[in-house]
Amino acid sequence: MRVFGIDCGTEITGFGVVESDDSGRESRLTCKALGAVRLAKAKALPERLLQVYTELCGEMQRWQPDVVAVEEVFYSVNAKSALKLGQVRGVALLAAAACGIAVAEYAPLRIKSSVVGYGLAKKEQVQFMVARLLQLKELPEPPDAADALAIAICHIHTAQTMMQQEGMR
Amino acid sequence: MRVFGIDCGTEITGFGVVESDDSGRESRLTCKALGAVRLAKAKALPERLLQVYTELCGEMQRWQPDVVAVEEVFYSVNAKSALKLGQVRGVALLAAAACGIAVAEYAPLRIKSSVVGYGLAKKEQVQFMVARLLQLKELPEPPDAADALAIAICHIHTAQTMMQQEGMR
Repeated sequence: MRVFGIDCGTEITGFGVVESDDSGRESRLTCKALGAVRLAKAKALPERLLQVYTELCGEMQRWQPDVVAVEEVFYSVNAKSALKLGQVRGVALLAAAACGIAVAEYAPLRIKSSVVGYGLAKKEQVQFMVARLLQLKELPEPPDAADALAIAICHIHTAQTMMQQEGMR
Repeated sequence: MRVFGIDCGTEITGFGVVESDDSGRESRLTCKALGAVRLAKAKALPERLLQVYTELCGEMQRWQPDVVAVEEVFYSVNAKSALKLGQVRGVALLAAAACGIAVAEYAPLRIKSSVVGYGLAKKEQVQFMVARLLQLKELPEPPDAADALAIAICHIHTAQTMMQQEGMR
């Protein structure tokens, strides 16, 4: 299974591609790609959104994931921030739909628990654990790309748990 | 000048195309098109966003406007609504950028003042005045399409005022 994780942000949107090899008894996770779309503040908003869309569509077409995984949104932010984040998130979800890829959403606490085993983990802990789970030699940078990889790992863990539960029935 | 107005909403997104004939002394406004994208609640969010994007891009390509005009967002809504609206708005702005059309934004009070002469006008007043300004035989429906036409008219009035000011210098 290949999963494309996206961590939407108004300035930096991280992405990461994780593949699970489920042939053996224990699945092995591999990082196929990671990166971030950094938005030029000088550009007008529609141009910035076009940049996010074009780059994400390009990466999805390149990596042909089975699923796109995104974070559910945390509503404690204020309305102004929520609107700005929503604009980027809408474009990211559109990119998945335009590429014909299904989207799965996970709550922030669940993503962190899935990777660090602790829902209130800090950014550095997420980076460290993502590097360990994917056997990376360096910490994934920027932290937004690490978060995107964590979202993809969360989807794989969730899918594996569901398959195991199906198997036990 | 031909302007494509969009009134973004989480359930219905209205659009309207207004053309001004600036050949004579008084410009005449004509409604070239109006309509609304109604989102199927049964569909998943990415599919709904794809529908908004596809329909708006299709209308923009059909009508070849000089400018796309949208409402600036009113921040008094709560964060949850702002995020939902932001997702649709991001996709609408992206559609303009993808079609290579410049975007202008206007505050809600300014749009209503420009059409009704009163910033706190009600929906019905906007529909009535839009119908009058565009010499429509019926009130524009749904109200979201009337609002989109009002946004387009606001852009034309603003551009004309600026041209007149330039001329007086």
